[in-house]
Amino acid sequence: MNLQLSRTGEMRHLLTIEGLPKQVIYDVLDAAESFMPVTKRDVKKVPLLRGKTIFNLFFESSTRTRTTFEIAAKRLSADVININVGTSAVAKGESLLDTIANLSAMNADMFVVRHGQSGAPHLIAKYVPPHINVINAGDGSHAHPTQALLDMYTIRYFKKKFEGLRVAIVGDISHSRVARSQIHALTTLGASEVRVIAPKTLLPANVENLGVSVYNDIALGLQEVDVIIMLRLQRERMSGVNLPSSQEFYSAYGLTQKRLSLAKSDAIVMHPGPINRGVEIESLVADGRSSVILPQVTFGIAIRMAVMSILAGQAK
Amino acid sequence: MNLQLSRTGEMRHLLTIEGLPKQVIYDVLDAAESFMPVTKRDVKKVPLLRGKTIFNLFFESSTRTRTTFEIAAKRLSADVININVGTSAVAKGESLLDTIANLSAMNADMFVVRHGQSGAPHLIAKYVPPHINVINAGDGSHAHPTQALLDMYTIRYFKKKFEGLRVAIVGDISHSRVARSQIHALTTLGASEVRVIAPKTLLPANVENLGVSVYNDIALGLQEVDVIIMLRLQRERMSGVNLPSSQEFYSAYGLTQKRLSLAKSDAIVMHPGPINRGVEIESLVADGRSSVILPQVTFGIAIRMAVMSILAGQAK
Amino acid sequence: MNLQLSRTGEMRHLLTIEGLPKQVIYDVLDAAESFMPVTKRDVKKVPLLRGKTIFNLFFESSTRTRTTFEIAAKRLSADVININVGTSAVAKGESLLDTIANLSAMNADMFVVRHGQSGAPHLIAKYVPPHINVINAGDGSHAHPTQALLDMYTIRYFKKKFEGLRVAIVGDISHSRVARSQIHALTTLGASEVRVIAPKTLLPANVENLGVSVYNDIALGLQEVDVIIMLRLQRERMSGVNLPSSQEFYSAYGLTQKRLSLAKSDAIVMHPGPINRGVEIESLVADGRSSVILPQVTFGIAIRMAVMSILAGQAK
Repeated sequence: MNLQLSRTGEMRHLLTIEGLPKQVIYDVLDAAESFMPVTKRDVKKVPLLRGKTIFNLFFESSTRTRTTFEIAAKRLSADVININVGTSAVAKGESLLDTIANLSAMNADMFVVRHGQSGAPHLIAKYVPPHINVINAGDGSHAHPTQALLDMYTIRYFKKKFEGLRVAIVGDISHSRVARSQIHALTTLGASEVRVIAPKTLLPANVENLGVSVYNDIALGLQEVDVIIMLRLQRERMSGVNLPSSQEFYSAYGLTQKRLSLAKSDAIVMHPGPINRGVEIESLVADGRSSVILPQVTFGIAIRMAVMSILAGQAK
Repeated sequence: MNLQLSRTGEMRHLLTIEGLPKQVIYDVLDAAESFMPVTKRDVKKVPLLRGKTIFNLFFESSTRTRTTFEIAAKRLSADVININVGTSAVAKGESLLDTIANLSAMNADMFVVRHGQSGAPHLIAKYVPPHINVINAGDGSHAHPTQALLDMYTIRYFKKKFEGLRVAIVGDISHSRVARSQIHALTTLGASEVRVIAPKTLLPANVENLGVSVYNDIALGLQEVDVIIMLRLQRERMSGVNLPSSQEFYSAYGLTQKRLSLAKSDAIVMHPGPINRGVEIESLVADGRSSVILPQVTFGIAIRMAVMSILAGQAK
Repeated sequence: MNLQLSRTGEMRHLLTIEGLPKQVIYDVLDAAESFMPVTKRDVKKVPLLRGKTIFNLFFESSTRTRTTFEIAAKRLSADVININVGTSAVAKGESLLDTIANLSAMNADMFVVRHGQSGAPHLIAKYVPPHINVINAGDGSHAHPTQALLDMYTIRYFKKKFEGLRVAIVGDISHSRVARSQIHALTTLGASEVRVIAPKTLLPANVENLGVSVYNDIALGLQEVDVIIMLRLQRERMSGVNLPSSQEFYSAYGLTQKRLSLAKSDAIVMHPGPINRGVEIESLVADGRSSVILPQVTFGIAIRMAVMSILAGQAK
């Protein structure tokens, strides 16, 4: 865990939210806030990372996430190299660490890593020379820290503070690296209560140990919450057993307007995207006045610019 | 149709040539002319679109067309993000408009859209916020406006004016978005006669309504024309019925030197590429002194720079 | 051969090491040396190729090699267009030279070409207009000149000079464009002895004519050598007959610590990568103090920057 912090407590890699001090998280949120005007102006570019080489290393395909990092890096004026590793050297039998050693020898400055196996970015961070920074862009069912940070930005933006907030996370908690990172972030930042709402089959064992309250009934779980985070039903990550059909899931856990009315009247609705309309969320809700799903995307660019700048020692 | 023009008649999107005023077309041709020196000099770059983010959204794969837009955007100093949408979020079941909403939320400035379904760029243009511009890079069998504009540039370059010109378009008119856009451009710009030459099975119903004269016999159709535009026989877009074989097509409609001699002696030969040698065109013609197929490609970069600059309000 | 040199002896294309004068090779090594500080500093960029358009034309997929050229070009401030040609126009039946003619018409400045067929870059160089430069990034089993140049840089870096050196190349000589280019470079630069070590089935006919000594027994071949170059066992390039299994190959030709001890005590171990641990090289050797495999990669970026700059007439 300490791997991602220097001796003096500065962020060197971003691998997981777990164990990240509150102040480090706030520093990212504040840096992102300072980048928001850049993303809106005519020339959406600052020269902070000019001449740096950032590798987008996607061992698992994700056009959407890769794009957000590519945009963030280009707006910081970095050179970006996209490598879809599934189709390259790994296919020729090269080991993960040999691939990393080679790219490091090309004088890489930063690796953004998406990997199907939990812990891969950790392993890479352990291995790279000290001047190279590693960002976890999602590993297995372990962590997706930049997603959680943009979610925290979104919550702070709309709710101003974390103290006193009741947050519900709904859906496939068990396979969700997003949920895990959100839970760590919310507990670190002092949310009053974090609820997870899911059928037993989609809850990890001993989830209570993460400091959350568990609800199997969404009607109970949504009562008086300030924030609802819907998760994507990721069929591609789920193996057959005890898997509800889309219709079954929607009827038991889909966020409809009727269910939304159980939450506080000013509750916000979040989703990491891409959304499955009619599976985890009703279109009227996704497009409704409580939805902040698109602002999340906008904040996501600023968050990734912030993380990259901080790691490169270049944050304002 | 009016979707692509502002209330004051300025081009906001480029979706189709149909209904585009003559002056708007001339403005694009003139802007392209002003960019021609840039594409030839040592540092082939102008800073007009610096800090803009342009998405190349290809729902249908086309390396060649994608490349021309990528080069044009880079020569304007824009940041380009290539998204081969077939392999990304859409595969995860996200709707077209949700994909667009997400990319818009990343503060996109422009979408260049190639789509297999007619009307998709139109739908996107209807949906995006007002500061985002949409360029149709080919949709189904509907339109391919930048191709038609570069063709008009080519004709003006070699023939100086459109008045008095007799233009023949030869081949699979029925499946060709290129032909449709060319016909609209040529009639708008005042060509004297536009002929379409094809077997009945490769002609759309009521093609005469577009203002063209129809020839099934190429020997008659090519008589005294100033411009011959050969179309690509696009097997991938044609379904089996009544489809001539390559050899049959070549023997009935292929542009040979002998047939070329029926046209005016200074006639030019055009083709949108990639050419099928020995299917729609004889090699001697493709490489001969009447061929302007490669100049078309060069003009195509300038045309795309012109369209992007005008849409961004940055044309010289 | 002379195709790659101008009348006044300057490099216009880089197609093969064969026939390249000693001084031209030294010029590349010297230019690369001048770029080494750039690759290590904070802003890893020089504006030498600003506004140039470089096409990475990979008719055969190779993420690693493509990446090194992309990084080199970006550090020279060029615009890079990656084209994986296997998936594009060629699939639509366009000929190689038509593809090249089209990209040339887009005002390309340089083509970096990887092709499965020996001689393809040569053919392209013959065909392009005089202002366009061609770099062979590996063609069939013919040549891989930038790999050989970075290998020469590596040898000069660690051994200071070529005179007096005994160099062993071990492995599948027969299918290796890398070996062929290395042999030409080493004999041109005056290495005392170049040995090839391989089973008869992996040696080309009449390999002695290239000026090398042939060893079938690795224990004899490694005696007192200064440099050991291990080749990758490229199963994808080998057809079934007489092919040793990985285990057989390792036991007969794999570079183990025991075998390494037969070479001079200060011998260096090289490999073009990606390495097959336990097939052609023991992990202890690959990661050991004699291994210079990762420095090769670093030098490879500088070599490609040097070649591109020299071809563009912009070397310092």
